Formats: sequence, C-alpha cells, structure tokens
Amino acid sequence: MLDSGVFGDIQRGTVCIEDIEVGMSRGLRKVIEDADLEMFGRISGDRNPVHFDDDYARDTIFGGRIAHGMLTASLISAVIGEQLPGHGTIYLKQSLTFLAPVRPGDLVEASVTVAAIDYGKRRVTLDCVCLVEGKPVLKGEAMVLAPSAKFD
Amino acid sequence: MLDSGVFGDIQRGTVCIEDIEVGMSRGLRKVIEDADLEMFGRISGDRNPVHFDDDYARDTIFGGRIAHGMLTASLISAVIGEQLPGHGTIYLKQSLTFLAPVRPGDLVEASVTVAAIDYGKRRVTLDCVCLVEGKPVLKGEAMVLAPSAKFD
Repeated sequence: MLDSGVFGDIQRGTVCIEDIEVGMSRGLRKVIEDADLEMFGRISGDRNPVHFDDDYARDTIFGGRIAHGMLTASLISAVIGEQLPGHGTIYLKQSLTFLAPVRPGDLVEASVTVAAIDYGKRRVTLDCVCLVEGKPVLKGEAMVLAPSAKFD
Repeated sequence: MLDSGVFGDIQRGTVCIEDIEVGMSRGLRKVIEDADLEMFGRISGDRNPVHFDDDYARDTIFGGRIAHGMLTASLISAVIGEQLPGHGTIYLKQSLTFLAPVRPGDLVEASVTVAAIDYGKRRVTLDCVCLVEGKPVLKGEAMVLAPSAKFD
C-alpha cells in the first residue's frame, strides 16, 4: 500500500503510442478518507457543507456527507497521468458524468480503457469509469496525446 | 483573503432555480501553490514527475513543472458548489478542454456563466472557463440540477 490510500499493483511509467492497443486497461483503487475531502476543500476552496457538515448533509438528498465529484474524477486523471499512457501524456479533453455519490470510507475503483487510437496524431480516446462496490459512480471519456518512443 | 489561497469577494450560499437567469456569472481567483500540487498528488495518487520534478519537467514540452489539469478543474467545481447555483446543487455532467498549462505561482481566474436553463427540470447549463493572465487555460461546460426555493 502506498501513502494517501492509493493501493494495488500500480505500474507507473509510460506506455508509448507505438505500444497502445484498443482494449488496454489500467486502474487504481483508493479508499476516500475525510483527510482527502479536507485537502480537496483547501485546494479548491470548495467548503460546501455537504462535504464537511454531518448535520447539514443528513438532511440533503444524499442523506450524509459526500466527496467532491471532482475528487473522484482526480483518480481518473491519476490513472492517465501515471499509467496509461502515463508520463509524457498531454491531457486534451475529459468528459465526466456523475452517476452516484461517493461517501467518505468508500473504496473507489478507477479505470481507463483504450477506446480508439489515431496513431498519426498520437491521439488516444479512453473510456473512464469509477466504481463503488461494482456500481458506476462516475463515467466519462478522455482524449489525450500519447508520448512516442521516437521522441525519447 | 481566505485560507488556501482562494481570494476575492466570494458570496457563498445558494442561488435557487427561481432566481437563476441566463448570463449570470460567478467566479473565484486563486494562486496555484506548490502545496496545492503536493496535496493533489496525495489525494489522487498522481505523482507524475511533470508536476513534482524540476529537472524532469524542464526537458518536457512544458519547459517546467505544471499543475495537474484536474486541480485547475477543481476551481470550476468550487464555483458551482459554493456560488452558482451553490449549496444544494447536484452535479450531473462536466466537460473539460485543457488549452494551456498552469504553472505553480500562476493566478487562475475560474468562472462559470449560465448558458441555458430548463426551469421544469431544474437543469442549468453553465459555460466554464479558467484564465491565466487573461488567456484561457481550461474551458468546459457543466450541467447541474439547481436547488429550488420550494424545497427549502
């Protein structure tokens, strides 16, 4: 287990465009902790009480505190930036659809899967999903520029 | 100035669907600090050296360390969650296009502007932008469910 609650056998580094194939997949698992919400609130300035105030959050549609949606999304960007394509990737676009709340203590499984490749332009499209107990909480699509072995 | 480097005359709270109009805009300004990158790395598990290693980053296309793209995006989500529509908002969708790198020390101005409203469904579409020195570094569109005064 690494620090920050991210764990699993993550292979950090780079998969160059020449080695990327449709269907390749990488991911990470992380338990979302109160400390993550606290840090995310400090970074973003988002101190919305639905993330921090038990009494307030209990009376909302969520019935309790939830993580910032973009905090969950950050796990997708971590998979892209650390694993697939990994170091050297240029992030072009990301779409996100928030499907269900993530609560402190939830184990999130974030993964990306190569959906399309434009080898000439080094553009890779990735399907992205975050699961909690097997249920999608966040889906999206990323478009990135992958590094090439030719430029190493 | 608030903690975490977010500053400006932010009006936190809620703008209910009944009071939202096309063209309404809210925003925040924040200087991205190394401490933000460090916390974002801990939250997401993204320790890509382009964010943390000066020597590595100098030899990349960016010519130096850059902030995580999703860190900049978190400022948009903060404007939505704290200001417009603010507390009680349900985040449905977000698209992000990364246009230029954000570097430690950059002052980012994040803002959202109401582009469309479906009063019956309480759905609000927001144009989102982050600027550095007046130049767009991130653009996108958000779709949210706004709170209603009827359910207070």
